[in-house]
Order: sequence, then C-alpha cells, then structure tokens
Amino acid sequence: MSELKLEKVANNGLINRRHLFGLGLAGIGTLASTSLFGATAGLNLEIPGWSKQPGPGASGYGARSRFTDDMQRLAGNPDPFYPGGGASRSPLHQLQGSITPNSLHFERHHAGIPDIDPAQHNLVIHGLVRNPLVFSYEDLLRYPMVSKIYFLECSGNSSTLFGSTPADGSVQSIHGLVSGAEWTGILLSTLLDEAGIRSGASWINAVGADAASMGRSIPLNRAMDDVMLALFQNGEPLRPSQGYPMRLFVPGCEGNISVKWLTQIKLTSEPSQFRDETSKYTDTREDRKSLQFTYPMGTKSTITSPSGQMKLGRQGIYQITGIAWSGHGNIRRVEVSADGGRTWADSMIESHQSVKALARFRIPWEWTGGNAVLQSRATDSHGNVQPTRMSLIAEKGNIGTYHFHGIQSWAVNAAGDVTNVYA
Amino acid sequence: MSELKLEKVANNGLINRRHLFGLGLAGIGTLASTSLFGATAGLNLEIPGWSKQPGPGASGYGARSRFTDDMQRLAGNPDPFYPGGGASRSPLHQLQGSITPNSLHFERHHAGIPDIDPAQHNLVIHGLVRNPLVFSYEDLLRYPMVSKIYFLECSGNSSTLFGSTPADGSVQSIHGLVSGAEWTGILLSTLLDEAGIRSGASWINAVGADAASMGRSIPLNRAMDDVMLALFQNGEPLRPSQGYPMRLFVPGCEGNISVKWLTQIKLTSEPSQFRDETSKYTDTREDRKSLQFTYPMGTKSTITSPSGQMKLGRQGIYQITGIAWSGHGNIRRVEVSADGGRTWADSMIESHQSVKALARFRIPWEWTGGNAVLQSRATDSHGNVQPTRMSLIAEKGNIGTYHFHGIQSWAVNAAGDVTNVYA
Repeated sequence: MSELKLEKVANNGLINRRHLFGLGLAGIGTLASTSLFGATAGLNLEIPGWSKQPGPGASGYGARSRFTDDMQRLAGNPDPFYPGGGASRSPLHQLQGSITPNSLHFERHHAGIPDIDPAQHNLVIHGLVRNPLVFSYEDLLRYPMVSKIYFLECSGNSSTLFGSTPADGSVQSIHGLVSGAEWTGILLSTLLDEAGIRSGASWINAVGADAASMGRSIPLNRAMDDVMLALFQNGEPLRPSQGYPMRLFVPGCEGNISVKWLTQIKLTSEPSQFRDETSKYTDTREDRKSLQFTYPMGTKSTITSPSGQMKLGRQGIYQITGIAWSGHGNIRRVEVSADGGRTWADSMIESHQSVKALARFRIPWEWTGGNAVLQSRATDSHGNVQPTRMSLIAEKGNIGTYHFHGIQSWAVNAAGDVTNVYA
Repeated sequence: MSELKLEKVANNGLINRRHLFGLGLAGIGTLASTSLFGATAGLNLEIPGWSKQPGPGASGYGARSRFTDDMQRLAGNPDPFYPGGGASRSPLHQLQGSITPNSLHFERHHAGIPDIDPAQHNLVIHGLVRNPLVFSYEDLLRYPMVSKIYFLECSGNSSTLFGSTPADGSVQSIHGLVSGAEWTGILLSTLLDEAGIRSGASWINAVGADAASMGRSIPLNRAMDDVMLALFQNGEPLRPSQGYPMRLFVPGCEGNISVKWLTQIKLTSEPSQFRDETSKYTDTREDRKSLQFTYPMGTKSTITSPSGQMKLGRQGIYQITGIAWSGHGNIRRVEVSADGGRTWADSMIESHQSVKALARFRIPWEWTGGNAVLQSRATDSHGNVQPTRMSLIAEKGNIGTYHFHGIQSWAVNAAGDVTNVYA
C-alpha cells in the first residue's frame, strides 16, 4: 500500500473523503499491482447452476433472498407482566443509505399491535373546536397530502450509554431504535383548521386505539407546524406495527408522541398528564426534578460500520459509514475520528436535502493493524454539535434513561475486534 | 359548497394548489357546516375489540396488514415458450409519495429470477483494461458507496398508448412499469479506474448471470458518469427480482440496460450487438429504419388518482395526484388539466430534490358531476416538455413499441366512471 497517493486528513488512517469518488481514486489502480479493497486477478470460468436454467417468473408481491434471512430486527423476550410491550431494533450494521425498509423499521409497543380493520376505524377531533368531526379512513384518503423523508427515534435509544460500564453491544443493540422513511399524510393543520380551533385551545391530546390507550399531549403551536396524520410509509399504507391505518407523525421528536393507531385528538387548554408522560419519557435530573416534556431529539450520529461485535478480517482500506440526524433541522457536518477524538476529519454526507431525516456519512480509512478508537460527531443546521458522553452526563446527569445523544466510541484492537468503549 | 372561497385556477374545477396546505384551507371549516372531504359529526362511542386486549408484540421481520393484501403487482400469465420471461407492474393507484416499497417495485425478467448465493458469485472486469479484476461480494462491500433516489422505468412502459384504440386499462396496467427507490452502490467509475482503462476502450458490455445471459452495451462516457454497481435498494440488499447480489444501475435510462445479476463487464471498442439490443428495445421509425440505442427515458408524468377503472363515489373535492420523472434531470413543473388540455394549472411538486427521481404532484379538484378529461404535463430542468400523444406519434411513428412518454388522458363521465381515452 505504501506507494498509494492517498491524502491522510487525520491521525490513525483517515483518508480524504474526496477519495470516495472515482476521480479521487483515478490512477491508483494503475500504480498498484493488486486491488485496493481485495479484488483478485484469478478468473473462475465455471458456469454456476443458476445460469443454466430459467428461474421463477414475476409475482404479485416480492420477497427478499433466502441468503439475507439472517437480517432481522432484535426483539426482546416477551414479558408476561407486560403483554405485547417492548421493542425491536433495526439491524443498522447491515443497512445502507437513509431509508429503512418497512419490514426492518424499529418498533416500540405498549400493548402489542392491534389488528385494525380500517373500515371500522375512525378518527375523532373534538374538544375546543367549533365543529367536532369524525373521519373515516376513506374520507381521509381524499384529503390533500404531503410526502417527506424523516427519521424516527425512540427516546430510549442508546440509553445503555448512560450506564457506568460500557455494554458489550452492537450498533443494533445500542442504537437500533432509530430508522428513516418517506412518510405521506395530511398536515394536521389541515384537519384542525377544518374543525375550527376555538380560543383557549393550546394543547392537543392524541390517543391511540391500542389496548394501552397510548396518549400524549403536544403543544398546539407544534401541532400546527409540520405534524402530519401519516397514512403511508415508503409508498405503501402503514404497517400494523407502525400504526395502521393511521398515526400521528411529529417530525424530529421522540417517537412516543407520534401516537400510533390514532383514534382521537382532543383540543384542550392544558396537557392531559397521560400515564406515558408521567411514568415514562421524562428526564429526571440530579436534583430529582424531572423535565416532563422533551420533544426534539438531539443532534446525533453513530458509525454503523465498522461497529461493535464486528471483526476486521484483514489490514487495508475500509469505508467508515454511519447515520446522523437532528430533531432541529438538517445535518450539515459529520466529523470522524480514529484516535478517540484527538483529531477529526470531515466525512462526505448524503442527505437527500431533507430536514429531520437520516443523513448517511462515509469516509475511507486505512487500518494497519494497530489500536484505534472510532468516533463520529454531528453538527446540524442550527449549529448544534453532538456532545461527548461525559459532557452530556455532566449537563443532564445519568439518573434518567432518555434522550441520550452523546458521542459513542468503537475501539478496534490489534486482532481487529470492534467493541463499544467509553473514551 | 357554494359559499367556499376556493380559488379556481383552470377550467372544470381545478383549485389553486396553495389550498393543499393548512393555510389555504384556514377559515373554510369555520364557514362550512360540514367537512370538505366527507367527514361527519356523528360520534360512535363503541369500543372496538382490538382496543380491549393486547396484540402480538415486536418481531424480527415485519409484515403488512391483512387488510392490504389486495395490493399486488400485476403479473402476466406464464408463457411456456418463454420460461421465466415477463413482467409485473406496480400498483401505482394504491401507492403514495415517490418511494416504491421493494415488494411492489415493478419487475421484468428474460429468463426468470436466479437464486444466487453471493458467496459463489463474482463480478469480472476485463477486456481493454490494464488489470483484469475479479470481485467477490465481500470485496465489494468494503468499497466506497453512494446513495441516491432514482426512478427506474422499463422502455416498454405505456406502450399500449401507441395503439390505435385506447385500452380499457388502469394506471397500473398502462403505466405500472415504473418505480422509485433509494439505490446504494459503488460508482462504476471507481471500479473501472482501479482496473485501469486502456486506450481504445469506448464501450462497456455488461452481462448478467441469469439463464438469458442478459447483455447490453453502454458507451464508456456514460458508464463513467453516474452509473453505479448497485448493492442495496431502500436500505436493504437488493431483492433477487432486482438483481441480488448486484446489478448495474444506469440512472434515468431504460431499465433493461441496468443489467441485473451482473457478473461481467468487458471494455471494448464497439458495442457487442447483444440479442436484447437488436431483437428488442429499438425504436423502428416510419421509414423502417431503427434507432438502436435509446437510453434516457423521456420527460413524463401520469395521474395515479383519480385513474382508470376507479369510480368517483360522490361529488365534491378530490386530490388529483400522480408521479412525474425525466431521464434528463429534475422535474420542475407539472401542469394539470381537467378539460382535455384546453386550460392548465400548476400542481404542487415534492421531489426530495433528486435528479432522475420520481416527483409526486398534487392539486385539489372539485368534481360537480359533469364530464371531465384529466391530463398531466411534465416539464424538466432542461426545459423538455412532455408531448401530446399525437405529437409524439407524429415524431416517432407508431411502429415501435418502446419509449412512450406522451400525455395520457383519463375521462370522467357523469356517473363518475374513470377511463383511459385518447383526447
């Protein structure tokens, strides 16, 4: 590798992000006698069996390859004292881009997934409105809609990083409660305008049709902004696990307030103090007082590859890649460090220009067999910079277990093992 | 409806696109005693069964609702003389946004779907290169990647509209060979640079591992532009029907040249005259000469709702919506007509800013029970305007059956039936 003209931009092997593109690599192949990434010159002339006979034809509804069946969400064990409760985490280490396929989008349920017949489901808007209205699913399909790419993150994502010892986890087990999708629905402001907001209304209270009657309170000014009644996810109707036939979707905010299986919106003068905004989802500080309503998710990123529980099989060049997001706006910058935060280099970002969406970042990295600590640090369009774990805990304390968005570290040892560490 | 202050912007009921948003509708609900879109004031206080007991919990791999099982691609009948050959069409009338879920992305196969083990599959780059290279799937996963949202369209899409009588079709049966996705892969230029392009090379020839040995020729300058070796679609590895474990992806161009199950790229000085670039995919003109290589797909749009074989169940306001795309760049404008092309109004476009991607357009429309002919007309960032069907045929003739991108018309009669017509 020594003859390669790759520009080093930070310590411990980080390479200029421009080398991601063909232009940056031009000429390298003509100098090196072997491939940068392990390709060989040996030709196998045997014709595989699948090229010798026709396969099955087109079908109504497609499936993935049997060779990818191991790509699964990580679901906790059922708890007999919490029937249907729990979560499943996206396999971030196996995914690419910034869209999560619906079958692998993370889930979080409080009483399992109701099997709702859309023809029997209604949405009621009532309370401090001039015209209380009842909407059927068919009614709602006629309304004007918008389509936007947004992330969704559970407020409990990454909570293990508040703990005093680093978990032996993967990016899936630590950070898998975040996903990205194109959501299509009706702006809530369209429906509230139609119902006619009465003076004195300053909160909406949203309730789901699941057996938990999941309810959350949202300030009316936020509800009138970019909040939507979502009906479609990545082009198709919502999956039952995501609220079919309809859910609230509050861009950039903790997933729990995007109430699934939405059946009721009531306009009130005050929050309703639902069970899930007192028993859960509050941030208890060191002085034992709790911040009750923490909506926007912090500016955050994580490296998805290389990541925890992977093993680097050979020395050479790797693509470091990951995802970044912010509840406040766009991701403008993601820096990467290979030496535990002492030196940093800018990665390349792809974001599809969407606010409050996952951005994919990438930077090439040469591993020469030594120790390394990989970190990523996101900056958003409002100038918010992802804090270190220690500075986040210094500010928030670590009694609470919600809204962790600090920098996380993957250590690589000489054997190529990748583990979650505090650094 | 007569007291509503909706601004009419073209004949026959087209309403200012600004009324798509809450701001535009503000005040309307307070004037009207009933909902614009059919909502009612009657409350049903019965608690449905699914709210009374917990449902199943989180799982490894999700599925859609049983109430959406009728949402299927439209696949042709198997042909015993063309085993595995044929296509399936996306249910555009049931989808929203600009991302097509992978299970509903259109397919086109020439010898069915090979069941490829990625550990046994190689990609060979050879011909006029300095270093012929063989890449395993594992090798390729280490390469720098890009993620982009692109449309993919079969060159035979909408070909029935070349015919002399209008087919009694749906938007799925007529236009269903187009879909949109986020594709992630390695720029082909990265791999070709590494192999080292030798002088005299001016074409690449790509061959798939299916039993048809699907092969196509592409000019080298196009291959060095935005062409990628795609490995992921909407975040997950390609589905077998889309080329698992790897395919060529040529943005904006006829789907056939995005060779699936890619196993070989040979650099040559001339095109290879593969079977599928002589027996098919050529545009035969009135003078019986054929244009052999037509790559970029034309500037095009279609209304997906209301659309063929639907029935408008009641008078009132509808959301006209559809998709637009261009092989040359961005969609800048989509106009909609409700009177067969005599008057036009601008629709609202959502495109996620991506070039060569599907753009979703929407405009409100009031149907008062009369006859209407709905059309859409796209304009792209290069100023290309979607032609009428008659002007397209006047230019290209109608001997060929590929690359139709003219304006298509949905007639609505007094009974609310929607049908494909020539207008």
